[in-house]
Amino acid sequence: MPTIKYYLREGLLPAGVLTSPNQAHYDDEHLRRLRLVRALVDVGGLSIASVREVLAAIDTRDESLHNKLGAVQEAISQPSPVELDPLAIKDVQDFFARHGQTECVDVTESNVTHMLAAALSSARSVGHDSIKELLDPYLEGLKIIARADLDYVAQHRSPDDVIEAMVVGTLIGDTVLKAVRRLAHAQVSAEVLGDVPAPGRAD
Amino acid sequence: MPTIKYYLREGLLPAGVLTSPNQAHYDDEHLRRLRLVRALVDVGGLSIASVREVLAAIDTRDESLHNKLGAVQEAISQPSPVELDPLAIKDVQDFFARHGQTECVDVTESNVTHMLAAALSSARSVGHDSIKELLDPYLEGLKIIARADLDYVAQHRSPDDVIEAMVVGTLIGDTVLKAVRRLAHAQVSAEVLGDVPAPGRAD
Repeated sequence: MPTIKYYLREGLLPAGVLTSPNQAHYDDEHLRRLRLVRALVDVGGLSIASVREVLAAIDTRDESLHNKLGAVQEAISQPSPVELDPLAIKDVQDFFARHGQTECVDVTESNVTHMLAAALSSARSVGHDSIKELLDPYLEGLKIIARADLDYVAQHRSPDDVIEAMVVGTLIGDTVLKAVRRLAHAQVSAEVLGDVPAPGRAD
Repeated sequence: MPTIKYYLREGLLPAGVLTSPNQAHYDDEHLRRLRLVRALVDVGGLSIASVREVLAAIDTRDESLHNKLGAVQEAISQPSPVELDPLAIKDVQDFFARHGQTECVDVTESNVTHMLAAALSSARSVGHDSIKELLDPYLEGLKIIARADLDYVAQHRSPDDVIEAMVVGTLIGDTVLKAVRRLAHAQVSAEVLGDVPAPGRAD
């Protein structure tokens, strides 16, 4: 399997135990790690460099679980190449201020806040400044979702399993959310727009 | 600007009106389309082929608005290369059945249901079968979010603007959702795990 060799060469999988010059033995932990790497690449769409960062964060043993989760979250949230619009940065700071964060937020300090400011900058660059109005209802819906995510992660016992559940749940969860959001859109659109003709169509 | 030339060559922008052998005039509609293409590529991460599909769906004038939105939604929801697990397909069908869809769902008929089945298949392949438990709370949170999305789209008047708002709101909204979800995770994690030491740390 060339993929395993590639992951071994990239240092994403520990070497197996050689049982002959051409054969190596891989145990359950190897297989588990291989499946995790594949999920990160295939589902998360992460680069090899990002996978390495996630694995390093999982394997670090000298931080609190909360810090470790934060490091993993940063690794799986790459900063966008979009140039930040100062007005979009202000939108993010206002959003934080509305939710009790009174100190001024430096959006470049974290990949997550940078991702948010970049998305709002892109929206502004295509004339959709008012997308910022969505932040509060999004947070309201996402509180329900985050509570479910936490319940899911809490089903796992060892801290390593908790982190793996967080990574898999966050990345696969992003795709699940995207898909279910589109299904919700389709349902709402059918209810509201089902019989509105498009322009140019005979009415 | 080489990017504009590239988009012109790829047929993503209509040609400008030549004002001299080396100069062409581009009007507001061109600039608007250029910003949309950039948003799709930079924010949505769409391939040129997908951008072409989205633009074709926007420019089609012979379908109902609901059908057009559906076509655009399919274009911006690429099927995943992940092989579908029959048990994951069953999870999707059960989810639809719980929400009133009594006929059997063919998950390969739409990119959106395929995306959902692929995400659940990936979760299963890394031992996270129980991620399906998240579908119902996700839908609950996403109903709040979809209502906000619809209100946002409904602020736009012409059907073309409605579709543009849907595309931009869906793609940029996906990134906004991802970022705000991570902020919600961080908040919940700080509350619940803030003082739990990681393994290997002195306690």
